[in-house]
Amino acid sequence: MDDIRVAVAYHTGYGKTGSLARAVADGVAAVDGATVDLIDVARLDERDWAALDASDAIIFGSPTYFGSLSAEMKCFFESTVDRWVDGPRWKDKLAAGFTNSKTMSGDKLNTLFDLLAFAAQHGMIWVGLDLYPGWHTAAGSPEELNRLGSWVGAMSQANSDEAPSVVPPTSDLTTGEHLGRRVAELAIVFARGRKAVAIAA
Amino acid sequence: MDDIRVAVAYHTGYGKTGSLARAVADGVAAVDGATVDLIDVARLDERDWAALDASDAIIFGSPTYFGSLSAEMKCFFESTVDRWVDGPRWKDKLAAGFTNSKTMSGDKLNTLFDLLAFAAQHGMIWVGLDLYPGWHTAAGSPEELNRLGSWVGAMSQANSDEAPSVVPPTSDLTTGEHLGRRVAELAIVFARGRKAVAIAA
Amino acid sequence: MDDIRVAVAYHTGYGKTGSLARAVADGVAAVDGATVDLIDVARLDERDWAALDASDAIIFGSPTYFGSLSAEMKCFFESTVDRWVDGPRWKDKLAAGFTNSKTMSGDKLNTLFDLLAFAAQHGMIWVGLDLYPGWHTAAGSPEELNRLGSWVGAMSQANSDEAPSVVPPTSDLTTGEHLGRRVAELAIVFARGRKAVAIAA
Amino acid sequence: MDDIRVAVAYHTGYGKTGSLARAVADGVAAVDGATVDLIDVARLDERDWAALDASDAIIFGSPTYFGSLSAEMKCFFESTVDRWVDGPRWKDKLAAGFTNSKTMSGDKLNTLFDLLAFAAQHGMIWVGLDLYPGWHTAAGSPEELNRLGSWVGAMSQANSDEAPSVVPPTSDLTTGEHLGRRVAELAIVFARGRKAVAIAA
Repeated sequence: MDDIRVAVAYHTGYGKTGSLARAVADGVAAVDGATVDLIDVARLDERDWAALDASDAIIFGSPTYFGSLSAEMKCFFESTVDRWVDGPRWKDKLAAGFTNSKTMSGDKLNTLFDLLAFAAQHGMIWVGLDLYPGWHTAAGSPEELNRLGSWVGAMSQANSDEAPSVVPPTSDLTTGEHLGRRVAELAIVFARGRKAVAIAA
Repeated sequence: MDDIRVAVAYHTGYGKTGSLARAVADGVAAVDGATVDLIDVARLDERDWAALDASDAIIFGSPTYFGSLSAEMKCFFESTVDRWVDGPRWKDKLAAGFTNSKTMSGDKLNTLFDLLAFAAQHGMIWVGLDLYPGWHTAAGSPEELNRLGSWVGAMSQANSDEAPSVVPPTSDLTTGEHLGRRVAELAIVFARGRKAVAIAA
Repeated sequence: MDDIRVAVAYHTGYGKTGSLARAVADGVAAVDGATVDLIDVARLDERDWAALDASDAIIFGSPTYFGSLSAEMKCFFESTVDRWVDGPRWKDKLAAGFTNSKTMSGDKLNTLFDLLAFAAQHGMIWVGLDLYPGWHTAAGSPEELNRLGSWVGAMSQANSDEAPSVVPPTSDLTTGEHLGRRVAELAIVFARGRKAVAIAA
Repeated sequence: MDDIRVAVAYHTGYGKTGSLARAVADGVAAVDGATVDLIDVARLDERDWAALDASDAIIFGSPTYFGSLSAEMKCFFESTVDRWVDGPRWKDKLAAGFTNSKTMSGDKLNTLFDLLAFAAQHGMIWVGLDLYPGWHTAAGSPEELNRLGSWVGAMSQANSDEAPSVVPPTSDLTTGEHLGRRVAELAIVFARGRKAVAIAA
């Protein structure tokens, strides 16, 4: 059986993007043959960098602050330049993204584009969310999956006056979990395919 | 008193972006000294083109379909090339944008970027939404202004199974109205300023 | 040997995006085991739709007009709604994008985001360009690969007063060819991986 | 005569965005009645914050690193939250943006969107570049204004192996200067208009 590793590399300011990150990681861990590394980019150590380098896929998560990724997340991105100049070493890994803010739309799409532009420069392959949108009918509810309507990555919304133990709501966390599972499953497909192609060659 | 004219140039597929367009136009019309031209770009005639050319500001509105502006809206954009090649004739008009889709986020920000990129190429000046976001607290409600959290332009969300007489909801329409009023007020400031500068010169 | 099929679905206004499309298609065709369908979306027939549906990957190409994808390309996108509502039927295909305009930057990135947002809504997996940028040193030249510096997709620049037989230049065409080859190779890996996973299950 | 103040708030990593910032500032200073404050956001002191608060317009400049604004620039953005929560105090200032990278396109548009999304959240009014594109004909040259083709803001390209005393080239600097002049002239129009409207009220 192929063992694949997926890193979830996130920054969280008040814990809410962190809650979403844990949900994404749970989705990865639920897949047979997948191992997850949950990495807080504000506290990177050598083991984290080794996990990132060894991963088959990296899922990037950042809060949306003032319409783009957080400065802390961007610091992490800038510090990957060593992986880029001589390789690029992260080429052909799968990548995906998620973001949280306090409002429903909240310019979160722009943060996902920031994450994606970074991953594209590293030569990574971008996996989005394959979920129909929820919460768009008269009888619809915020409890539906993909309730915000996002496909480039997973979005969550967390009330500004509630604790990360309560928000983002279950539907957003489950949506994030779905993204984690999807990335892990595709990483297995990819790893198997590479092995098959290598054997045939 | 300066009389200024603001055109609201929109496309609507099922009437919902049209409802938002009317709200934006109402906001313009509520401003003393402002005249509004509500223009359906799928039915442009010579009078509409004259109104667009004569306007101090144009507010562009499009549904978001599959993550970007509608083909019909883009047809209109492409047909403005005559205003661009010899001038550009729309330079320094104010511009703004709005968009509707069935979901809360729904990639609507990308449509606003499409509208803005077009306006920027024409040398127009972009006016966004100066409203704090709503609906982001435990006690918050969808009835609050700017309930989706958007600033590049106005966003509305309309349930897919309800009629344009009912959706988008009042809060989104009032948000659109606010954008119309803001653009008209700023167009007056600009027109007054131009006159003052011309007199001084 | 796995036979995979890659569709190159493009719109061209004056033939320049068409030249790039042919280069991308050549890149696909150069890969052992890959078949290419070059599809002009302004002239779609039933066979084209069948090819799109049967493809392992679709590479989308559009000119950049006024800062976003062309109206013709967007018409095509809107006509795919049948593939989306009941499935979505294009889910997990690979996707990629390219665009041409007359200037070096020319807001082409926004067109790539338009293409990508569409593909993401269909649940497709996005493959970017894994090439270091060219033409950024004192001794650098426009003949270098990825001379414009683009990774979300392939960009080309075509002088406005030259014919599509001459522009875009060879470096841009070769960059497009590289994208086609890359997508085809990854489509084979994916197809092999799916087969391996299916057998294991 | 109205005296208006324009702040140029920039980050530079290796001095190249700094060169562009000085050109933009020169453009502001060339306008009769305009005063410029050139502010390096990595070294903000109380006087800089006072200048930002007192300005009629702020022009934001950042290098493009890995496809988005620099972490240092984003740190500055995040530190403006005090100006936003109680007001917003920067509302209705004019805003504009510029960015440098080593390649021609180089995802710089995404950085401009990052800058713009920030300004929009503050309720600022966005001024783009009103220049026809250059360098897009057989006889065209990199010495033409707006040689990269950008309108949302000003772009420059600086060879990676040359010093900020030599790159970005004159055409890009002159393009930046044009943006500075344009913003200053429009800030005067705006200030005059506000005064006229206030007197009339």
